[in-house]
Amino acid sequence: MTIGVRRRMGVEERRQQLIGVALELFSQRSPDDVSIDEIASAAGISRPLVYHYFPGKLSLYEAALKRASEDLAGRFAEPREGPLGARLLRVMRRFFDFVDEHGPGFSALMRGGPAVGSTATNALIDSVRQAAYVQILSHLRVEDPPARLELVVRSWISLAESTALIWLDGRRIPRGELEVQLVHDFAALAAVSAAQDEEMGTLLRGILKEEPADGPFADLVTRLISLAS
Amino acid sequence: MTIGVRRRMGVEERRQQLIGVALELFSQRSPDDVSIDEIASAAGISRPLVYHYFPGKLSLYEAALKRASEDLAGRFAEPREGPLGARLLRVMRRFFDFVDEHGPGFSALMRGGPAVGSTATNALIDSVRQAAYVQILSHLRVEDPPARLELVVRSWISLAESTALIWLDGRRIPRGELEVQLVHDFAALAAVSAAQDEEMGTLLRGILKEEPADGPFADLVTRLISLAS
Repeated sequence: MTIGVRRRMGVEERRQQLIGVALELFSQRSPDDVSIDEIASAAGISRPLVYHYFPGKLSLYEAALKRASEDLAGRFAEPREGPLGARLLRVMRRFFDFVDEHGPGFSALMRGGPAVGSTATNALIDSVRQAAYVQILSHLRVEDPPARLELVVRSWISLAESTALIWLDGRRIPRGELEVQLVHDFAALAAVSAAQDEEMGTLLRGILKEEPADGPFADLVTRLISLAS
Repeated sequence: MTIGVRRRMGVEERRQQLIGVALELFSQRSPDDVSIDEIASAAGISRPLVYHYFPGKLSLYEAALKRASEDLAGRFAEPREGPLGARLLRVMRRFFDFVDEHGPGFSALMRGGPAVGSTATNALIDSVRQAAYVQILSHLRVEDPPARLELVVRSWISLAESTALIWLDGRRIPRGELEVQLVHDFAALAAVSAAQDEEMGTLLRGILKEEPADGPFADLVTRLISLAS
């Protein structure tokens, strides 16, 4: 029966099926806890046949992670239309969708661990961070970012990761609240930098000028002023 | 001569010396690039003698990392006196001192890598994060933090890590500016959360009430209001 299935699927088709099955299992539980036997069983094939397509669990894990990385990077794509705050909020919604779908696997990967700290997995994580960074700069219409803007954008990306990880650990705060919060956090970190540096101040004023009075950035400024008074 | 030195030092003394020598080398270059031969040579002993005290490079690396972790956690200790903003700024100075002293090793560790992603090293990193978290809560005089405060504190700790890592990559921004910026970032992230949640609002107002008019928190609010107007 195994051979029958094998004959019906081509090599690449079978590889893609195995990656999909593995990604689903790696998403639901820590990858350390998923065995090749389970993957074989979920794919309806024998254990030796899995090894025929992937030399070991790590290579299957890396292939699954590559697919997940491409999926996540794809969710950052957002048309360059309308207010920036609203665009960022839509991306945050899709980011939390992804985190929600891959919860335990995302946690295990980002917290590091014996099976997942390889050079290849770190390179994939960095490639997703870089994709996020490039997207944000293109929305800000900045080609050659000053060091302080690069710091704000990259450190905010790491803040989004840690916020998602903390959310996954118990889900004690509604994710919709955190999606808005991260948009506000971006504005807040940019504002802190702009408060100290003139170049950042000019840049931020240019961005805020185009934001609508009912957008998330304007909302934050109003709330902060009321909090401070 | 090697035996002569060996006779003069006790086992624990020799272990501590090797840890110190290794930590210095692991701090100056990525731990992957440091060999046992180099450690032996810097300690003035033979390679087999190093293996007599530590079974391999990983165990020596873990011992060096343990010492560095305790050193860093010790720098978080700050007397509960005077305004909070000034206390946090002093801790940030000591944090950047540490990052400065251990630059390449700190980067390699926090960015992950084949030799450094072990369960033991991850546990040490987590223990330092936890020490920072406990210190901050104790300064805020909060024993049982609501989920939103825990999120603000823990995500700010990860922001401090990523800010330090980005600073190390080229040192294009003066560290003194980033020390102040991280204090402001803490206030800003707390303010964003407080702007959405009443419990956080009450907590933050209580903290800000005790801050002096010339402290870093008051400074930030003044700058933000001028930026928004």
